[in-house]
Amino acid sequence: MHTLKDLQELFNHQLNNLSYIKEPKELYTPIEYTLALGGKRLRPCLCLSICEMFDFPIEKAMDVAIGIEMFHNFTLLHDDLMDNSPIRRGQTTVYKKWNENVAILSGDTMFALAYDYVIKNGHNLKDVLAVFNQTAIEVCEGQQYDMEFEERNDVSEAEYIRMIYLKTAVLLAASLKIGAIISDAPAKDADLLYEFGINIGLAFQLKDDLLDAYSDQEVFGKQNGNDIITNKKTYLLINAFEKANPTQKDALHRLFYTDTNISNEEKIREVMKIYDEVGIKQITEDAITAYQEKALQILKEVSVDEEKKEILHEIVAYLYHREK
Amino acid sequence: MHTLKDLQELFNHQLNNLSYIKEPKELYTPIEYTLALGGKRLRPCLCLSICEMFDFPIEKAMDVAIGIEMFHNFTLLHDDLMDNSPIRRGQTTVYKKWNENVAILSGDTMFALAYDYVIKNGHNLKDVLAVFNQTAIEVCEGQQYDMEFEERNDVSEAEYIRMIYLKTAVLLAASLKIGAIISDAPAKDADLLYEFGINIGLAFQLKDDLLDAYSDQEVFGKQNGNDIITNKKTYLLINAFEKANPTQKDALHRLFYTDTNISNEEKIREVMKIYDEVGIKQITEDAITAYQEKALQILKEVSVDEEKKEILHEIVAYLYHREK
Repeated sequence: MHTLKDLQELFNHQLNNLSYIKEPKELYTPIEYTLALGGKRLRPCLCLSICEMFDFPIEKAMDVAIGIEMFHNFTLLHDDLMDNSPIRRGQTTVYKKWNENVAILSGDTMFALAYDYVIKNGHNLKDVLAVFNQTAIEVCEGQQYDMEFEERNDVSEAEYIRMIYLKTAVLLAASLKIGAIISDAPAKDADLLYEFGINIGLAFQLKDDLLDAYSDQEVFGKQNGNDIITNKKTYLLINAFEKANPTQKDALHRLFYTDTNISNEEKIREVMKIYDEVGIKQITEDAITAYQEKALQILKEVSVDEEKKEILHEIVAYLYHREK
Repeated sequence: MHTLKDLQELFNHQLNNLSYIKEPKELYTPIEYTLALGGKRLRPCLCLSICEMFDFPIEKAMDVAIGIEMFHNFTLLHDDLMDNSPIRRGQTTVYKKWNENVAILSGDTMFALAYDYVIKNGHNLKDVLAVFNQTAIEVCEGQQYDMEFEERNDVSEAEYIRMIYLKTAVLLAASLKIGAIISDAPAKDADLLYEFGINIGLAFQLKDDLLDAYSDQEVFGKQNGNDIITNKKTYLLINAFEKANPTQKDALHRLFYTDTNISNEEKIREVMKIYDEVGIKQITEDAITAYQEKALQILKEVSVDEEKKEILHEIVAYLYHREK
C-alpha cells in the first residue's frame, strides 16, 4: 500500500509529463504555470487512495485524478480573479501576471481539459460524470455564496457551513466517490466515502480558518491574521459574534465594520484579544474534532478490511495536525 | 420532415420549460437571462436535423441540443466580458447588467450545465464527449487568437480563416456530428457532416463580416460599419489590405491606425469607398459561395436519400440569403 507521500510523488510525476500544451502559447502557458504552482494534490491523491483500497490499478486512474486536479486549479484560477487575490502559493496569480482576459480564457480551457482527462478511462463514465458535473455546479454555487457573504454582516454559522460544504467539501467528497466508482466499489461504499469526504472537507476548511489566526508563522509561511484584515467571514469571525457578550460584540463591530482608521496590526491584536476571551480557538478545534470523528465513524462502515483504510487514516491525521 | 422553423419552435419550447434554476438566485438569474436573449438556435437545430435525417427521435436528442446551445451561450457570455461588448441582441450583456464576477461565475456554471445536458441521453457517450470536449477547447483557442489579432496589424487571410474555423466553424460542425453520433449514423457520414459544418461555418462568419458593412440597415437592426469603427480584423479588412494598391493601402493604414481624430461617420465613408474600389463585396461573396458549394459537394456524399437532406439545403440557403 502506498502512503500519501508516495501517491503525491506518483501523481506529480504524471502531471509533470502531460502533453496538453499546444498553440496558441498565450492560452496554454498560464495553464502550465498554474499547475506548476504545486499544492498538496490532496484531491487526486484521495481518488487514487480509494482505487488502491478497492484493488483497482492506480495507473488506470491517473487520468481521472489529473482531471480532478485540473478542475480544482481551474476554480483557483477564476476565484483568484474574482477575489482580486494577487498571490497564491507565494507566486503571482494569473490575472495579475498576465491579465483578466487571460485568466478567464485559460480557466475556461482548463475546465474543458479537466473533462478531457476525466472521460479518458471511460469506465462507468455516466456515473463518474454525474458526480463530477454536480460537483462542478455546486462549487460554482459555493463561490457565489462566498462572494455574497463578503457584502453581508449577518452570515449565520449554518449559512457558513453550507457555503464551505459547496465550495470545498463536495470536491473532496467527489474525488473519493469517483475513485470508488471507477474501481467498481459497492454503491453503498461509494456513498459512505462521499459522506466521509464531506466531513473531512468541512474539517479541512475550519482548519484553514484556524491556521490563518493561530498558526506558527515560521511554518505557516505567511502572515497571520490576513482573514481579519480582509473582514473575511470565517468560522472564527461568525462564532466570535455569536458567542460574544454585548461589550465584545460592540468592539468586534467597531473593529470590523466602522473603525476605518485602525492599523492592520492594531486590528489583528484587538480582534485576537476578543477571540481569546471568547475561547474561539477551542470552539473551532472542537468543531474540527467533531467533523473528524464523524468522518472516522463513517469510515468504519466501509466494507473493506481495516488495514486497507490505513491511508485514509493517515490523510485524516495529516489534515488534523497540519500547520500550513 | 420538419422545417428549420419547426425545429426552432420545438427547441425553444423545450428550452423555455427547463428547470435548472436553483439557489443562489444571483447565479442562476443571469443564466436564464442569457438563454432568453434568443437567437437563431442554429446549432441545436443542426443537431436535431441530423437526428431526423437518420431516423433518431428528436425528442430523445433534445437534452444534447440544449447542452450545445447552453455551451454556445456560455461562450457568448464570457466573450462579451472579454471583448467589453455592452450589447447583445439589443439587450445589455451580463457583465454590464450585473458585474464582471457574475459574468465569470454564471458562465462557468453554464459550462457545467452544458455538460449536464450533453450527457443526459448517455447513448454513445464517450464518442459524443470526445467531439464536444475537443470543440470546447478549440473554441477557447479561437477566442484567444481573436483577441490576439486585435493587437496585430499583420493578420493574414490564412490566419483569419484558421481563427474563425476554431471560434465559429467547429461548433457548427460538432453540432452536426454529435447529432450523427447519437443517431448511430455511419462513422463516414458523421465525418462528412462535420466537414459540411466546417464549410457552412466559415461561410456563416464571412456572411457576418459582410453584413456588418453591406446590410440593409432596416433589416439588419443595427448600424452598419461597427467592425470598421472598432478596427476589427474581418475578412473584409484583411482582404482590402491585401488587394489594395499602394495609395489605397496608405489610406487604409491612416484610417485604421494613425488618424485618431477622424469621426466614425467619416471613417466608415472613406473605408467603404476603398472597399468598393477594391471590390471587397464581390471578393467576400465569392468566398462565401465557394464555401457553400464545397459544403453542398460534401453533402452529396452523405449516404441518405436526397429528400432527407432537404432541411440542410434549407439551412444553407437561409444562411446564404439572410440579411441579419
